[in-house]
Amino acid sequence: MNLVLVEPSELVDGRVVLRDPDRRVHHLRTVIKIQVGSRIRAGVVGGLVGTAEVIENGDRLVLAMSLGDAAPEPLSIELVLAIPRPKMLTRVIEAAASFGVARITLTNAWRVDKSYLDSPRLEPAVLAHAARLGAEQGATTHIPPITIHPRLMLLLDERWPAPGPGQRLIAHPGAPVLEQVVTSEPITLAIGPEGGWIQREVDTFIERGFAPVSLGTAILRVETAVAAALAQLVLLGRLRAR
Amino acid sequence: MNLVLVEPSELVDGRVVLRDPDRRVHHLRTVIKIQVGSRIRAGVVGGLVGTAEVIENGDRLVLAMSLGDAAPEPLSIELVLAIPRPKMLTRVIEAAASFGVARITLTNAWRVDKSYLDSPRLEPAVLAHAARLGAEQGATTHIPPITIHPRLMLLLDERWPAPGPGQRLIAHPGAPVLEQVVTSEPITLAIGPEGGWIQREVDTFIERGFAPVSLGTAILRVETAVAAALAQLVLLGRLRAR
Repeated sequence: MNLVLVEPSELVDGRVVLRDPDRRVHHLRTVIKIQVGSRIRAGVVGGLVGTAEVIENGDRLVLAMSLGDAAPEPLSIELVLAIPRPKMLTRVIEAAASFGVARITLTNAWRVDKSYLDSPRLEPAVLAHAARLGAEQGATTHIPPITIHPRLMLLLDERWPAPGPGQRLIAHPGAPVLEQVVTSEPITLAIGPEGGWIQREVDTFIERGFAPVSLGTAILRVETAVAAALAQLVLLGRLRAR
Repeated sequence: MNLVLVEPSELVDGRVVLRDPDRRVHHLRTVIKIQVGSRIRAGVVGGLVGTAEVIENGDRLVLAMSLGDAAPEPLSIELVLAIPRPKMLTRVIEAAASFGVARITLTNAWRVDKSYLDSPRLEPAVLAHAARLGAEQGATTHIPPITIHPRLMLLLDERWPAPGPGQRLIAHPGAPVLEQVVTSEPITLAIGPEGGWIQREVDTFIERGFAPVSLGTAILRVETAVAAALAQLVLLGRLRAR
């Protein structure tokens, strides 16, 4: 946790009162080992960041918030992700949220094991919690909204019925490398399941204006590919901005 | 497994004979669902890649190897990694190996929990297995050698006693971004533990010619940071080569 995130509703007169059992109280006491007078990085969900000073640490944990700094802008990247293996899902959401992606769209795909859709890890509260942990890790106040789509074609028809604005990308081994394709933002990046998209899915994405891209020669696991793709897009964004 | 890796000693007269219990036999039969006549991507550790044709699939699994293609060159990157939490260690080794890093150097550091050094996951055979799985995932025949160093200072004294040749990097949040620093290969990249290097460690690395670099604003977990750093270095290498 590199940033203690509080809800706007928790901030009253510049103070936040937390009580056990609260994950944040537990973390601040056992990992950060706060005392009265400790100052920690804090932020309001969707808002500013700054410092929280511990002014009471007994039955209640009271933080005096001093929030004056803009949080890092979310990336102009929507991640469209074929639902990964449940034990990997939480980690992938956390990683994507730590980068500050704008939103995460989970979708079924041909090579997604049907059992994955019934996983308790796909419950909205579990996903939202993973996104929050990721934001705290990445020190951003943006918690990406996450939606789940049990049918890829319906998702495409609804969101991307035809080629249109924005840079649309689909990760696919052997395709041209990212920097040959990416020229602008916002970006929609589709990453397939282990084993990849099937050709029919790739063709449909292409019909809807998605350009196939690869990250290089290595074939990466989904969790590694998500981090690698976001890292390369962030770097390309910096190079474009120069 | 995107590439079936065999040892040079297993290749006799262009054929490889595998028997249960062998992890590869199990994987080829249950996941890839091979039959006689199936052709799969294969390679020899440290050598060429090509195709393996299944010519017998009973008590023995016999593969006729046709290996004529150069494997992807290993990256000119040595990863120096503070020993991560054991449950993360195997995944990080796999990810780094899937990128094709040249070698992996694991080291103790101030913020590495002392218990990590006693983890069975640090046993050489376990690490080598993770590196092999990573190479199979990344479809490379290079399995990075891995060494373990219980004292960071001894490692630095032995390998990097003073500034010298090669691009030496230490990941450190808030430092200049990679592309402002990296100009050449080979690269040695040092990534710290959760919580980061302590300042004294950073200072020592700098004395030995390591330049602090960051990947951007977000603070990433070690496993995400390793993938992100390697991905950005691979991209910078491609851009330099143009």
